[in-house]
Amino acid sequence: MMSRRFSVLFIAFILTISVFLSADASASDGDDGYRLWLRYEPVTDPVVKGEYLKFSAFIRQSGKGEIMQSASQELQKGFKSLVNRNISRTNSSGNMSGGIVFKLLPRTTSVDDEGYRIQLAGGNVEISSKSESGILYGTFALLKHMQMQRPLKNLNITGSPKVRYRMLNHWDNPDGSIERGYAGSSLWKWYELPERVDPRYMDYARANASLGINGTVLNNVNASARFMSQEYIVKVAAIADVMRRYGIKTYLSVYFAAPKTLGGLPTSDPLDPSVRAWWKEKVAQIYKEIPDFGGFLVKANSEGEPGPQDYGRTHADGANMLAEAFSPYDGIVIWRAFVYKADPNADRFKAAYEEFVPLDGKFDPKVIVQVKNGPIDFQPREPFSPLFGNMPKTPLGIEFQLTQEYLGFATHAVYEAAIFKECLQSDTYVNGGGSTVAKVVDGSLHGYARTLMAGVANTGNVRNWTGHPLAQANWYAFGRLSWDHQLSAEQIAQEWTELTLTRNRKARENIVDLMLRSREIYVDYNTPLGLSRPWMGVHFAPEPWQNKGSRPDWTAVYYHRADSVGLGFDRTAAGSNALSQYRPEVQKQWNDPDKTPLSYLLWFHHIGWGKKLSTGNTLWDELCGRLYSGADSVMWMQKKWDLAKGNLDAQVYTDVAERLKVQRREAIWWRNAWVLYLQTFAKQPIPKDFQPPKQTLDEVKKSVNIYLMR
Amino acid sequence: MMSRRFSVLFIAFILTISVFLSADASASDGDDGYRLWLRYEPVTDPVVKGEYLKFSAFIRQSGKGEIMQSASQELQKGFKSLVNRNISRTNSSGNMSGGIVFKLLPRTTSVDDEGYRIQLAGGNVEISSKSESGILYGTFALLKHMQMQRPLKNLNITGSPKVRYRMLNHWDNPDGSIERGYAGSSLWKWYELPERVDPRYMDYARANASLGINGTVLNNVNASARFMSQEYIVKVAAIADVMRRYGIKTYLSVYFAAPKTLGGLPTSDPLDPSVRAWWKEKVAQIYKEIPDFGGFLVKANSEGEPGPQDYGRTHADGANMLAEAFSPYDGIVIWRAFVYKADPNADRFKAAYEEFVPLDGKFDPKVIVQVKNGPIDFQPREPFSPLFGNMPKTPLGIEFQLTQEYLGFATHAVYEAAIFKECLQSDTYVNGGGSTVAKVVDGSLHGYARTLMAGVANTGNVRNWTGHPLAQANWYAFGRLSWDHQLSAEQIAQEWTELTLTRNRKARENIVDLMLRSREIYVDYNTPLGLSRPWMGVHFAPEPWQNKGSRPDWTAVYYHRADSVGLGFDRTAAGSNALSQYRPEVQKQWNDPDKTPLSYLLWFHHIGWGKKLSTGNTLWDELCGRLYSGADSVMWMQKKWDLAKGNLDAQVYTDVAERLKVQRREAIWWRNAWVLYLQTFAKQPIPKDFQPPKQTLDEVKKSVNIYLMR
Repeated sequence: MMSRRFSVLFIAFILTISVFLSADASASDGDDGYRLWLRYEPVTDPVVKGEYLKFSAFIRQSGKGEIMQSASQELQKGFKSLVNRNISRTNSSGNMSGGIVFKLLPRTTSVDDEGYRIQLAGGNVEISSKSESGILYGTFALLKHMQMQRPLKNLNITGSPKVRYRMLNHWDNPDGSIERGYAGSSLWKWYELPERVDPRYMDYARANASLGINGTVLNNVNASARFMSQEYIVKVAAIADVMRRYGIKTYLSVYFAAPKTLGGLPTSDPLDPSVRAWWKEKVAQIYKEIPDFGGFLVKANSEGEPGPQDYGRTHADGANMLAEAFSPYDGIVIWRAFVYKADPNADRFKAAYEEFVPLDGKFDPKVIVQVKNGPIDFQPREPFSPLFGNMPKTPLGIEFQLTQEYLGFATHAVYEAAIFKECLQSDTYVNGGGSTVAKVVDGSLHGYARTLMAGVANTGNVRNWTGHPLAQANWYAFGRLSWDHQLSAEQIAQEWTELTLTRNRKARENIVDLMLRSREIYVDYNTPLGLSRPWMGVHFAPEPWQNKGSRPDWTAVYYHRADSVGLGFDRTAAGSNALSQYRPEVQKQWNDPDKTPLSYLLWFHHIGWGKKLSTGNTLWDELCGRLYSGADSVMWMQKKWDLAKGNLDAQVYTDVAERLKVQRREAIWWRNAWVLYLQTFAKQPIPKDFQPPKQTLDEVKKSVNIYLMR
Repeated sequence: MMSRRFSVLFIAFILTISVFLSADASASDGDDGYRLWLRYEPVTDPVVKGEYLKFSAFIRQSGKGEIMQSASQELQKGFKSLVNRNISRTNSSGNMSGGIVFKLLPRTTSVDDEGYRIQLAGGNVEISSKSESGILYGTFALLKHMQMQRPLKNLNITGSPKVRYRMLNHWDNPDGSIERGYAGSSLWKWYELPERVDPRYMDYARANASLGINGTVLNNVNASARFMSQEYIVKVAAIADVMRRYGIKTYLSVYFAAPKTLGGLPTSDPLDPSVRAWWKEKVAQIYKEIPDFGGFLVKANSEGEPGPQDYGRTHADGANMLAEAFSPYDGIVIWRAFVYKADPNADRFKAAYEEFVPLDGKFDPKVIVQVKNGPIDFQPREPFSPLFGNMPKTPLGIEFQLTQEYLGFATHAVYEAAIFKECLQSDTYVNGGGSTVAKVVDGSLHGYARTLMAGVANTGNVRNWTGHPLAQANWYAFGRLSWDHQLSAEQIAQEWTELTLTRNRKARENIVDLMLRSREIYVDYNTPLGLSRPWMGVHFAPEPWQNKGSRPDWTAVYYHRADSVGLGFDRTAAGSNALSQYRPEVQKQWNDPDKTPLSYLLWFHHIGWGKKLSTGNTLWDELCGRLYSGADSVMWMQKKWDLAKGNLDAQVYTDVAERLKVQRREAIWWRNAWVLYLQTFAKQPIPKDFQPPKQTLDEVKKSVNIYLMR
């Protein structure tokens, strides 16, 4: 007996050593970030550990559904890693205690389908829900609780989502590139599918499910028709098979002209019967391979993409045709409101409202219109889109961008929860005060049957998923807010930091502090006082001088309108009158340049260079002040980060520290570009508190041009 | 004392556990392939382990050079992992035994600069070389020896490279994409450099140095001028700092028109003094940041790239201008011979010879002309390029392609050593029999002072570097052959398999068998009997019918010349007479269709459909036979692979097994495309032994067209 026990121990020891050595043989000995917020680092508090072990005797499933299996597997993984205990599964219905019990509630129970409750019952930890997905979400909630070393005494955790469709949008192309991706190439390996299923797909699903994300659009909204072919549908189905096990539905972006280019029809007119028949058949073909297919996402008549207007039809005509094809199924049609015409005299700000508000009430109930948070395009700061609140009969979903297209790619730390929250908390006043964007989106304001929050993914195939280690927090924050938009940016940052980076309280405080200020710092050196779109080319380098484009609204000067008098886009009645798209209460906030918060000032007003602002500074001095302090604040971020050193993984520490150095250099670049360029209009000296840039405007332009070369 | 010892053990145990658990928390529990052939799996033979431990007392360096430091670190890593022993370094010159000693030989010793010897001396393992690089190569040779669990008794290993410049060419673009890359995006993260230095750069360097590769060209030959800017030079310098520690020099591809586009000069004419001055200054600027810079690689007047001919100058004029700029330095100019004009009446086969042979003797000694192995473009099988042997006064380097542009991307298993060896062993007969391409390339035939072997890299940022796990073998084989072209394909496959996949002899035999036959199998279903270039578009799907292109030689029909009479490109005197570029002895092998080996038949002859071949079959029957047996042989590969199951890592097993399924499906696709298309000319039935394709030609074309869509 003794010797057998010894040999078991010996084998365990050898196995342990061999994994240790394997890990050692690569250069990346530290935390490579792959595990995200699901690190399951061993519990260090012995009391808490003992408590957890009391419930490690078994997992009792309720049925054998595949999502339930995933929940069990995740618990097993978590317990093994957190408290080094293997838990086995049982389906026994006998009286047992000291384990974890999944309890599937009757469908008639009056709780949300996906909600869950975790409590102690009958000597077990019980996770109950009406759905397997709810059980899975409860499981992840329990594991989060344990990762944070919280006691199980008086355990009573409940959760239920405020929005029904919580999804990522991938702008991934069939060739593996990602439009606006800064974290390597696509996770989806189309040339290997369907036969080869990358193990990483499962870790992607785990990460999303842990946040409550229940949908994913795999391909770019500038969509390839390939995805409507049987060849690609079976590839998509292989991914959907993985997603399904984690309660995630798979969606596709569609190319509106596919009936012509792929189907060989003479037209893609949505009112043409042969076109309608083609889409019906196509959707049926998809459901044959993917019985729980989620639906279509459509970018139509936008930035050159084909759409119903090519045939004199409306967006509603196009969307309803697709909705008809989905009528036998659960799937939905998500139609993007991101449209604007190439009109030099128009204000792009107003375009989506003008096109979509007249269509309110004309969409099939299966259609959700997906609206970007702001009226233009994911700028570091935008006012909320005036569409929110103005389409009471049409479910409006919100689209946020996680990938840092306009936020410094993978080298600028920008915690985006501040952007998401700012928009969600904005009051539209459509039904009086308190009519926030969040209430529009969660359906409570207009009683939408279908509600949606979408995030344009920032994931790629780099080892840590997002490039910048801190960008993982943006994925996390989006997921958490899509589940519960009432969480605060700080609360989410606290959680994420504890799960992902460190259990050390002091280090966490410094990191959270850095995160919470990061967005304002970026705005200050990049687009202060309500400036926007100072780049064209690759959306990387400063180009406020850019004044030639294939469209008038594809220039930088279109947006900032700098001239000898002043700066900013007049959107009052004296200007484009875009403000009229908001309710009077909102207009009142932004109509008067003297009362407009400085953060939105140049979004709505053309302000004279010498005008005194509420700070007591002239516009020029205030601009310079913000650009300089923004760039200098990156040094503050560096100091904050350095204070956490030693209390988080060394590899992660170095990674972020190096990226902050890039950010510091580029922040100065941005500052210099703006100051020197605007100075040619303002014709004023740089305030004496600040050291003038070492570069000339011409030198900055030259250095920018390098990034525009092939 | 006892309790202190216990606590040390306890801490070690906790550390071990924590790494074990970390590894467990990700889905990829198996071998993810990241370690390549440097796995350093624990030695399992206790006798051998004991022997190794006898030499683990210390490492004695010779000096403190940084390459020497890398060698020490690698030994430490290896010993830790192989025999679980920490070795410390010493610089003591006292008499010590039981360690490993690096011995730097005087420069006057008559051995090759980079060569090494490993032997037992004074109770130590002694690694001696004239250079630090040699010590590093010896170190890797010792570690390989240990990975293979070979005894140290009578240790006497020597090595020295046959070629001086052994390098990878990366076709990586500044945006992170890779031209013809199938393993994710670029390893080089230009937006993060120079501040952030990805730890993976070091593992890349280690892998290359372990093979003796001593140079790397970081960017695509379709080069961006960005790399000539100070902004990018400092980024390149940050990578060069890592490479230098492993004896690897960094090179750049250059855009010939950079003086105009980047420098703002009115011309890029190589004879213009201002252009010459610009390049001189540019090279000086690079050396200021990278003191050991390797040199330039140039694709000029090729496929639309600018070059000296834009100004009526020759390739020699262009190359010599750049060589002049390098005259104060060690760097060299590598000028590619991959040129061909868009002439519908010309034979592309002949173009490089026609342009370059007249320039023999006109190049600066610092120039090496880099020639692709075959006359066209990295086809699954090509005859050797007729340039080899025909430029005795000009050092000719050889360029192989590791990335599988024409070899099925990342889902077809093709062991390329067979391709490399076939070319290197080819006899040019230029100085009589035995004048092999290898002897041209290694300089022994014409006394070249500078010799070069280049491989177009198949690396990307996917975790296992190359996509297909077996494609790692192609990187390995190229490196080994660039060091010693006399190694056989089998020898290399044996080595690689043992180091990378399994120590089990039987499993190795099956895998090596699969590898050695893989190239002929691919040729059989892809381009049998000397066919070539049946694809245009993305070089993925079969397109033998493709007959429209922006250039006449950018069609498939240009190459196979199928008509009602027969198939193949007549390159005899009756045809393009390309054969005349070879020596008479070579012509004799390929001139007569009845004597031409079948593998080269259609490269040189237009053969009637009904002609009886040496096999006794007509051309049509032989073609069908090869296409069918090629596609079916993938099933044999699957069986071979399955026989190794259980004797190699499960994750790697599954990965390859799934890719073989894709290969099987696509091999049938290829077979069907060829058979159905050629049947429209041959007008003969498919031989009765074979089951006719289930698809029609039209269906195959449609399925191919899907892959040509946006």
